[in-house]
Amino acid sequence: MLATVLYGERDIRLDEVAEPVLSTGGDAIVRVVASCVCGSDLWGYRGIVPTEHARRIGHEFVGIVEEVGSNVNRVRVGDFVIAPFYDCDMTCVNCTNGVSTSCLHGGWWGADDRLGGFADGGQGERVRVPHADGTLVSTPTQPDPALIPSLLTLADVMGTGHHAAVSAGVTVGSTVVVVGDGAVGLCAVLAAKRLGASTIVAMSRHADRQAVAREFGATHIVEERGDAGVERIREMFDGIGADCVLECVGTKESMDQAIRSVRPGGTVGYVGAPNGGPELPVRPLFNSNIGVNGGIAPVRNYIEELLPDVLAGTINPGRVFDLELPLAEVAEAYAAMDERRAIKVLLRP
Amino acid sequence: MLATVLYGERDIRLDEVAEPVLSTGGDAIVRVVASCVCGSDLWGYRGIVPTEHARRIGHEFVGIVEEVGSNVNRVRVGDFVIAPFYDCDMTCVNCTNGVSTSCLHGGWWGADDRLGGFADGGQGERVRVPHADGTLVSTPTQPDPALIPSLLTLADVMGTGHHAAVSAGVTVGSTVVVVGDGAVGLCAVLAAKRLGASTIVAMSRHADRQAVAREFGATHIVEERGDAGVERIREMFDGIGADCVLECVGTKESMDQAIRSVRPGGTVGYVGAPNGGPELPVRPLFNSNIGVNGGIAPVRNYIEELLPDVLAGTINPGRVFDLELPLAEVAEAYAAMDERRAIKVLLRP
Repeated sequence: MLATVLYGERDIRLDEVAEPVLSTGGDAIVRVVASCVCGSDLWGYRGIVPTEHARRIGHEFVGIVEEVGSNVNRVRVGDFVIAPFYDCDMTCVNCTNGVSTSCLHGGWWGADDRLGGFADGGQGERVRVPHADGTLVSTPTQPDPALIPSLLTLADVMGTGHHAAVSAGVTVGSTVVVVGDGAVGLCAVLAAKRLGASTIVAMSRHADRQAVAREFGATHIVEERGDAGVERIREMFDGIGADCVLECVGTKESMDQAIRSVRPGGTVGYVGAPNGGPELPVRPLFNSNIGVNGGIAPVRNYIEELLPDVLAGTINPGRVFDLELPLAEVAEAYAAMDERRAIKVLLRP
Repeated sequence: MLATVLYGERDIRLDEVAEPVLSTGGDAIVRVVASCVCGSDLWGYRGIVPTEHARRIGHEFVGIVEEVGSNVNRVRVGDFVIAPFYDCDMTCVNCTNGVSTSCLHGGWWGADDRLGGFADGGQGERVRVPHADGTLVSTPTQPDPALIPSLLTLADVMGTGHHAAVSAGVTVGSTVVVVGDGAVGLCAVLAAKRLGASTIVAMSRHADRQAVAREFGATHIVEERGDAGVERIREMFDGIGADCVLECVGTKESMDQAIRSVRPGGTVGYVGAPNGGPELPVRPLFNSNIGVNGGIAPVRNYIEELLPDVLAGTINPGRVFDLELPLAEVAEAYAAMDERRAIKVLLRP
């Protein structure tokens, strides 16, 4: 079968690889219907994270179950399934605590998994899914093809935006600022709206992203950054800042922007993977009672909550995909994201 | 009148100073009935924070109102009052948000206050209290003298321990670890018990403090620290750590202990003033979805909630005072705390 392999900086190829084979009894083989490129995939592509040996890549996919191991009971052949960006058993103490990203037996797509098998990447034709009963969520029926982009966002970006909002304590009437206008930031706007925020500020300088943010529920756009951005936000909220700030980037600058935009006693919900840093400055947090909460989003725990809204069309997070390409053009998909010609690219094998 | 003045490292004296005088219309003069020495007072006493010029000190007191300004409506002459460790108006946006430590018009005892007057320290015979209607809480009647130590803890340590527990999200059934066995840590044990925690581990090496922790509701004592402490805590809680860890010290080591003792998805509630650091290591927090929440405790916002339990004798946080001295022996009070001969010293003018 064909699958995407990252060889090094800006060297990404679609290679012929071995077909996946059931190996644990608890696994399943899923034929990928749609996958996509994540902002974090670009770290390796751009060489920010060095590629020491060629590796399979891609961690967001939806598909059809083709085979299941002998111990799989919940997921059935023929099911349309959503896979989170990791595998997890949903039975260990961390999974049942709602933190399936810390599953005691889980792993990551494209990594050697702990059960001895090879975990495929999502940007390919098929994927072997460990812990299929825990990892995969089946839709009640075969979904309308028009819903596939939105269903695919439950694998990562919509669940991650939701985690930012939940971590920041967004509730009915909250004032919210979203730092970051990538797919996760836009989904965070949608999540904040869904949870009842009264005011949602999207910090964005790009007209196309501003338009999606408005569609998703942003009530205000702020283009300024740094000191000017902080000043604008404070002006908007009683001179003190917003109740909740959702940090959806992961750089030192974006975290600083977030911490300075939240009011005393407010919370920063952060999901931007801090690639190598920064540390959090404890003294300003302490002095103003600013909480920092979040992390790598346990999206598997959120799928059941978000899925009905996607199926009903109440939310349409698939709107973040502004380019769709066949898997054969995966290299162009990466280039389009790298060069910011696309917010997020959907790939169809 | 007599008041305590810090002159420099281990040089603390009871001096004759000017009587306080009403100056803003919104202030009150309170005759101090009881005050005490705080762990943070020791920073200056020990020279960790240099004393550049002699200054008035003490920020915890209860007393009787002797005079009120012409604009004071709620507090009346003769009232027994509790003062938090700062002054605040309780009408600004931060106060009404529950964060009176960030009062837009507040200040700190012993500092020049923003209304132009001199804010007295609490370790003296009388104190001028700015924003008397916001700052002071009157008891419904003159309290039983036996309750005075517990009422005094509402000025700081009991409210601060409560803030650690609230910030960590302690609720019915939570598993809790308390790092720090000073007066605040012990009060945090009591607060966690009051909020319904099912298991409360006090990390302490001192038999006298362990005894108070047990009285306050600790179900377990852990004497180990560092790696051994983390290992013991994880063993106790499914190998993953506790739901909530209350950090009540403020050193790099204690924060590290706290972060490593909380389970994935759990929260560190911290109230230990980070004296000059440390920064928070974002990557382990992110990877395990550990929230960090807390700060300088807005104890004024908690007094109404905690006061009925103190008056009813349901909680007895005054138990943290294990030495009582006349104000004339304030130097001995500091020495006893400095040399760890006392957990906390109560002073009576």
